[in-house]
Amino acid sequence: MRSIQQKEQEKSIENKLVYKGKIITLQLETFDVLGKSKTFEVIKHGGAVVILPIAADGRILLVQQWRRAVGEITIELPAGGLEKGEEPLACAKRELQEETGFAAKKIKPFGGFYSAPGFCDEFLHMFLAEDLYPSPLPPDDGEMIDLLPVTLNEAKHLITENRIRDAKTIAGILRYIVCGNG
Amino acid sequence: MRSIQQKEQEKSIENKLVYKGKIITLQLETFDVLGKSKTFEVIKHGGAVVILPIAADGRILLVQQWRRAVGEITIELPAGGLEKGEEPLACAKRELQEETGFAAKKIKPFGGFYSAPGFCDEFLHMFLAEDLYPSPLPPDDGEMIDLLPVTLNEAKHLITENRIRDAKTIAGILRYIVCGNG
Repeated sequence: MRSIQQKEQEKSIENKLVYKGKIITLQLETFDVLGKSKTFEVIKHGGAVVILPIAADGRILLVQQWRRAVGEITIELPAGGLEKGEEPLACAKRELQEETGFAAKKIKPFGGFYSAPGFCDEFLHMFLAEDLYPSPLPPDDGEMIDLLPVTLNEAKHLITENRIRDAKTIAGILRYIVCGNG
Repeated sequence: MRSIQQKEQEKSIENKLVYKGKIITLQLETFDVLGKSKTFEVIKHGGAVVILPIAADGRILLVQQWRRAVGEITIELPAGGLEKGEEPLACAKRELQEETGFAAKKIKPFGGFYSAPGFCDEFLHMFLAEDLYPSPLPPDDGEMIDLLPVTLNEAKHLITENRIRDAKTIAGILRYIVCGNG
């Protein structure tokens, strides 16, 4: 096994821009890996937020969403990409209102994670949103979303029955079940 | 809010190939969304596996890995992409050997999820691997990996302290903590 210690001997040779779009940028990054030139396909992404909204009755506000990239209606936590220069907290408040129609009196950081660190640098900042009240914002252009409030027990069953098939949603719900709101 | 029911009125107009690589393909997909033409950036990916390997002493075999796409050494469950035509189970067995040096007498499906369904179709097939024995395979070219066995309690703390920052790893470990091996 090649140890991670050997990364110190690695050198970046070239970054080649293939595509620069609205959401993602594609680069070919070439490194000298222990004397051999190797090229990696890398997706650059501006980062995103995911929100765990807990309603007054303890239910989690999930959303059902038409996801063109996977050709499915998915069950997910509300989430969305950071706009240029936008702070994660501001983005979380905006996405919560756009996707669920609610705002939160209490909203705080709740960890975060990379979605696919093998080829993409997208980092998802997670927030826990509590003390919700109705305060809708119009949805993002093209988004098709329905609200799906579920109890913690229902959420757990949606995961074990593989009906929730989204990594950030499983990670967020189970963190709340295992660790509470701390 | 635009409901997911309205997706029935949506029509695909065009798929334009931007880049076809080894790991990912980038397409621009244009749809007629309720009378308006809208284009989405979509990453096509051949799918992957993630393995939750449980050692005889109950520890989870995590790996520390140099991840060029995010410029960090991450803590993750063993994982890897499906080769062309490869079955997920065969891929899981291969990746387990390559990344941990162990094979499993018992290995079974354990759910799965999309990594980033907003813009990428990568689906991760998860496997639970038990009854491990030493059986190393050489690593993938360019991979730099160290083994990191942790107890369930240590894994939970690595998550709550935000030292594990990878969605699939958090989802996999917490599913095992919450649901056991069922």
